[in-house]
Amino acid sequence: MSNKIKIAILGLGTVGFGVYDIITKSPYLNNVVVTKILDKDLSKQKLVKKAEVTINYNDIIYDKEIKIVVETMGAGEFSYHCIKRALEAKKHVITANKEVIALHLEELSKLKEKKGVSLLYEASVGGGIPIIYPLYEIVKVNEVDEIQGILNGTTNFILTKMFQDGLSFSDSLRLAQEKGFAEADPTADLEGLDMVRKIAILSSIAYKGVIHIEQIDHFGITNINDEDLVNIKKTGGVLKLIASSKQQKGKVNILIEPTIVQPTNLFSTVNEENNLIAINSSFNGNLKFFGKGAGRYPTANAIVNDIIAIIEARRNYTFENKNKLIVEDSSDVNRYYVRLKPNEFIDLEYIEKQENNSIITKEISRTTFKQIIEKVEFYAKIVS
Amino acid sequence: MSNKIKIAILGLGTVGFGVYDIITKSPYLNNVVVTKILDKDLSKQKLVKKAEVTINYNDIIYDKEIKIVVETMGAGEFSYHCIKRALEAKKHVITANKEVIALHLEELSKLKEKKGVSLLYEASVGGGIPIIYPLYEIVKVNEVDEIQGILNGTTNFILTKMFQDGLSFSDSLRLAQEKGFAEADPTADLEGLDMVRKIAILSSIAYKGVIHIEQIDHFGITNINDEDLVNIKKTGGVLKLIASSKQQKGKVNILIEPTIVQPTNLFSTVNEENNLIAINSSFNGNLKFFGKGAGRYPTANAIVNDIIAIIEARRNYTFENKNKLIVEDSSDVNRYYVRLKPNEFIDLEYIEKQENNSIITKEISRTTFKQIIEKVEFYAKIVS
Repeated sequence: MSNKIKIAILGLGTVGFGVYDIITKSPYLNNVVVTKILDKDLSKQKLVKKAEVTINYNDIIYDKEIKIVVETMGAGEFSYHCIKRALEAKKHVITANKEVIALHLEELSKLKEKKGVSLLYEASVGGGIPIIYPLYEIVKVNEVDEIQGILNGTTNFILTKMFQDGLSFSDSLRLAQEKGFAEADPTADLEGLDMVRKIAILSSIAYKGVIHIEQIDHFGITNINDEDLVNIKKTGGVLKLIASSKQQKGKVNILIEPTIVQPTNLFSTVNEENNLIAINSSFNGNLKFFGKGAGRYPTANAIVNDIIAIIEARRNYTFENKNKLIVEDSSDVNRYYVRLKPNEFIDLEYIEKQENNSIITKEISRTTFKQIIEKVEFYAKIVS
Repeated sequence: MSNKIKIAILGLGTVGFGVYDIITKSPYLNNVVVTKILDKDLSKQKLVKKAEVTINYNDIIYDKEIKIVVETMGAGEFSYHCIKRALEAKKHVITANKEVIALHLEELSKLKEKKGVSLLYEASVGGGIPIIYPLYEIVKVNEVDEIQGILNGTTNFILTKMFQDGLSFSDSLRLAQEKGFAEADPTADLEGLDMVRKIAILSSIAYKGVIHIEQIDHFGITNINDEDLVNIKKTGGVLKLIASSKQQKGKVNILIEPTIVQPTNLFSTVNEENNLIAINSSFNGNLKFFGKGAGRYPTANAIVNDIIAIIEARRNYTFENKNKLIVEDSSDVNRYYVRLKPNEFIDLEYIEKQENNSIITKEISRTTFKQIIEKVEFYAKIVS
């Protein structure tokens, strides 16, 4: 035991327990032991016989034996505070926290460099899909000009249940919560904010500059209703919540929006809690990564691979903020499915087809669409 | 110059020149220089101003300054001989050579361990798709039970041209050769032997044991004709050459065969020279990797990433031969599209539908199918 590498886990929830479980069971990790776990519920001690559960973070920070801190609380400010203190205490940190990474990537990268430790966050985007470390490899010699993704397992699960299995929105959401994909408060997922954070992380790494999440327009699926479901099915497509990000010479367009894709589109084949991330780069062309974007073991597995990488000194990427990026609207034109708020109207020149308050628009630019978005209860971009 | 890391490239063909080009142009590789190139055509000196082209491998082997040898000749015995000598001379080796890796993975892995250098071969499978190093990461804590893939850009390009663009087999092949995907002698691609080598490499790594390529049944697309094209289109599916590999408790089923997939199957969306590799593992579930499986820059990019990994001491995986694997037929049953050789007949009990010498079989096992395969001119497995 004394020669083993000692690890602390912050938060013994779905993912944190998965990490504990894989470490305890894998022969490859015989040289690793979880000695302490931070959790406010001390009764969880019965779940983890080999580790000590504590409510006092100082027990971990001042434990010089602990070399690696794994943060899986998914909190905002408190997680940030814990990660920062761990790095300051020269402990390696691994986190699944997309909120903290999206907001503080540059600051935390500088801090870990200064302290000579690693900060890894493979599990923050795409659950079990290896995407962060391949992306850091890609950007060494490639220029990335486009990223597209289904990056949220919860909303994709809900949309699959609605469009393929005929369930209602509320039944689909309940099922997602039962399966452990959706949070008790699913607002961040449903409104697209979770995807905002993830595309901000990927775009920042890919374009080597800071993307602020406030700069990213997003529209979620909170307002979708049965009428939308029927109308969208009529188009022959299925609905997906898709993040898209493009860059050219430092000018960036990023958008999260409901998108109607046709059955021949690869995104239409991404079902349940799966994610798909497509990255287009200069030498490599279009690479696509597909896999489970949520769930205990896929996410825990990504964390465990980061642990192994630290132990084997193989992975220590650093975010580079070398480009000043300007976020602006894309000039692409698209058709949209739009359902207006009650008693709202839009200019006839934008309308291709209207039935009650549901409209299919003509091809219009994002800038034009933004002029009417205040009147919109739900919409989806139509792509081929 | 004297502080730069010196590299030799063996073979200045499509991929070799791509490697030279990326190294010469990328700011990230300012600390790397290609000093010598082995090629039998000395007139290629005019293409590479900064490196010396030689026909004498000793010029490279005895050059103590050269730390990394990149093998892109794609030869068989001669490439193997060059790789071995480079490792023996304690030079790191990077190769795109699937033939050499499929045949000599265990021996070369032992040799590079003994000599304390790296042997990397990311470009040997999947062209520009990062698959070898993610797979080595996956197998550390995951048990892999299935691999499926479209692993040959040339045949996939040909089948796309035939099934989507209506070209004949010979026109499609000529186009693939013009685009630089197909070799002058495309036999290894068309007969499925290239995919045999690649699935052998992936399976050996995934299942941690040696797979001998002679153990792998394969059937290519050499014999496909216009009648097959028409008949297969009638089924509503498209034809793909697919490698599949399954493992349970050391028992392995591997097969390369033409496969009819329906439009809702993800494999049907993989077109042109793209590859798709799906890996199913215990914690991670089903991961899929998609990208360009052939072409100068995607393949060269994979090699360049291996160069960077060696320089940054990040990647030094070792093939582990710890399992004794038994290769046997799968017990799965399938329907097949079969076109018989002239004057051949098969038992009525296997036939669902027959028109002239084209047959759709009932569901039969691989073992049963093997009993009639001698009578078959062309076939394709039918999957959903």
